[in-house]
Order: sequence, then C-alpha cells, then structure tokens
Amino acid sequence: MDNPHPWAETLPLLYEHLWARLIRGVHDRHAPARHPVLATVNAQGMPQARTVVLRGADQAAATLTFYTDLHSTKVEELRASPLATLHVWDASAHLQTRIDASVTLLTGDDVSETWQRLPEHSRHAYSSGPAPGTPIADSLAYTKTPDQVAFAVLRLDIQAIDALHLGPHHRRARFTRADHWAGQWLVP
Amino acid sequence: MDNPHPWAETLPLLYEHLWARLIRGVHDRHAPARHPVLATVNAQGMPQARTVVLRGADQAAATLTFYTDLHSTKVEELRASPLATLHVWDASAHLQTRIDASVTLLTGDDVSETWQRLPEHSRHAYSSGPAPGTPIADSLAYTKTPDQVAFAVLRLDIQAIDALHLGPHHRRARFTRADHWAGQWLVP
Repeated sequence: MDNPHPWAETLPLLYEHLWARLIRGVHDRHAPARHPVLATVNAQGMPQARTVVLRGADQAAATLTFYTDLHSTKVEELRASPLATLHVWDASAHLQTRIDASVTLLTGDDVSETWQRLPEHSRHAYSSGPAPGTPIADSLAYTKTPDQVAFAVLRLDIQAIDALHLGPHHRRARFTRADHWAGQWLVP
Repeated sequence: MDNPHPWAETLPLLYEHLWARLIRGVHDRHAPARHPVLATVNAQGMPQARTVVLRGADQAAATLTFYTDLHSTKVEELRASPLATLHVWDASAHLQTRIDASVTLLTGDDVSETWQRLPEHSRHAYSSGPAPGTPIADSLAYTKTPDQVAFAVLRLDIQAIDALHLGPHHRRARFTRADHWAGQWLVP
C-alpha cells in the first residue's frame, strides 16, 4: 500500500509539513491546529489541560502565540512553572503533533496594539470581575466586562516537536531547537 | 436564542450527559470521547500530552480505562507521578470536559483476561523490542512483535470533572468525588 502522505517520508518534508499545518491553524478556523490542547502543571504538581485558540505561528523564530484572560488558572500555573506542551491531533492527516515549549507572558504596553486590533465581540473573553473558575450560585450568575488590563498574550518558544504519523507504516520523529530542527526518527 | 443543549442547564442533567458522552466513546469509534488527550508530568516537571483510546467507562465507580505499552514514556511518568488530566473537546456538543484523576497501572495476571480478548491485529501496539521513542537511523527501522508482557491497563480513578459548555450563554461546572458529584457552577 502506498503512503497517502508522502510528506511523512523524509525529515525535511515532515518538518515543513508540520509548520504548514500550524500556520493554517492561524488563518483557517476549521483547521485542526486552530484549537490545540495546552497542557501545563499546577502548583500541586497536577497536569492540567484545556483547549486554546492559535493566534500566531512564526516558523523562523519557532514561536506560537495565544491570547488569554490574565485571571485564568493557566496564567497562574505558567507564572509558577513556565513550561507547556501543546497537542494537535489532525485526523485527516493521521498526524499527532506535540510541542514542548517555554512560555513568556506578555501584558500591558506589550500587548496594547494587539488589543486595539481585537474586534469588540472578542474582547468579552478578557474581563474584569470574578475570575474564571470562581464558584457561583447559578450557572449564569456572572457578567463579562471587557477590560484591556485582563488581556494577555502567551508566547511559546518551541523547544521540541514530536510528530507521529499513523499510516500503512507508522512514523515518528522529534525535531529540537538545540539540533536546529534537523530531526531524528524514533520508534513509534 | 434558546439553548440548543438543554442538558447544560442543570447540574444533574449536565452530569448525566457527561457520562453518556464518555460511555459513547467506549462503544463508538467516531465519538469525540473515543480519543481524548491524556496529560501527565515527566520527571523534569514538564507537562506531557498524547492521544489515547478510551476502552472502558464505569459511572458507578467513576473510573475510566485505557490500554498502553508498558515501555511507553507515559508509564514511566505515571510511575513517578500517578496523576493525570484527561481532555475531551466535543465539537457538536460545544462541550469541553476535563477530568482530574489518580492513575493505577495494572499488569501481568491482572490484565491477562483483557489480553486474551484483544484481536490479533490490536496486539502489535504492545511489543517487545526497542521502546517507543528510541532513536532509529531510518523511519521504518523497527519491528513490533506482540508481547503480552508489554500489555498494561491504566485505570483512572476520577477525582474531579470540569465541564465547559459554549452556548448562547457559556456555562461551567465542576463535579468532585469528595462532593459525591453534586456539582458546583463556576464562572466560565
């Protein structure tokens, strides 16, 4: 059986393909990379995970960007341990991408231009008032008031990308910043 | 605008619905809960995440089960820190489910009956030889020889479930074992 995904057969093609799919996630809200899972570790050493929205992907710098409410639990966790893993499952490509990164939190003047470009309806996700996760008596007993002070950007500096392709033969590779993204095949 | 998902409106209905969707994941390979993301923490304190296949869901005991190769990195991580979070994004229900759990690793005689029931073609995922993640010179320079000794079951004893429903109004609730799954609304 031929491999329906020839880009999985060499390390350089695979690496270019990974980035093409990440970049598509920034521009196409239906692309799998649009909604990755971001995993972090909380103060008790518990792993935590949530869906996030990919906002930027820069292959040359090997960085990804996300927006967040500054009062969210993930910000608290990343302040204590600025390490994250991002997970994308791309069903049509039969491709699992896992990205290890160090995370920088950008706030205030560093993100004011980004805030200015946000459409009004998007600003409700960044609000003053009770933080996400606060107990409330009824499901809708909350309001969200857009607040520029609550808007933050997470910049992920990628350290390693692990790609697993499930085809007629499974293939797995790991690309690291330390190795200038040359890549290494691994047992799947 | 009416809520197209009335099950999100009360804590008991929401809890029952969460379990119905988990149980569907066991029996329907196209259900979103079939392929959750399992997050763990490695020895360096880095979060790690990968797609897993849901094999069992027991609402009365509040447990979930998964199969794994005993030589996989996640087993090594769970032996050091037996805590995990499971993440399911159910696009059609607009529902994110996050499950905190303590994890028990079952091997040997405890899983031999389960191994006997596995179809032959499924056994290749549990093999002797180089462990998953071992560097290799070429993408296909590996073989997988089914080996019962490599077969293990992960039992997740659920401690808490956090559900986020994105509707005309967003709703979020947390259900805990300590609270006998009564549930608590949270600010989304």
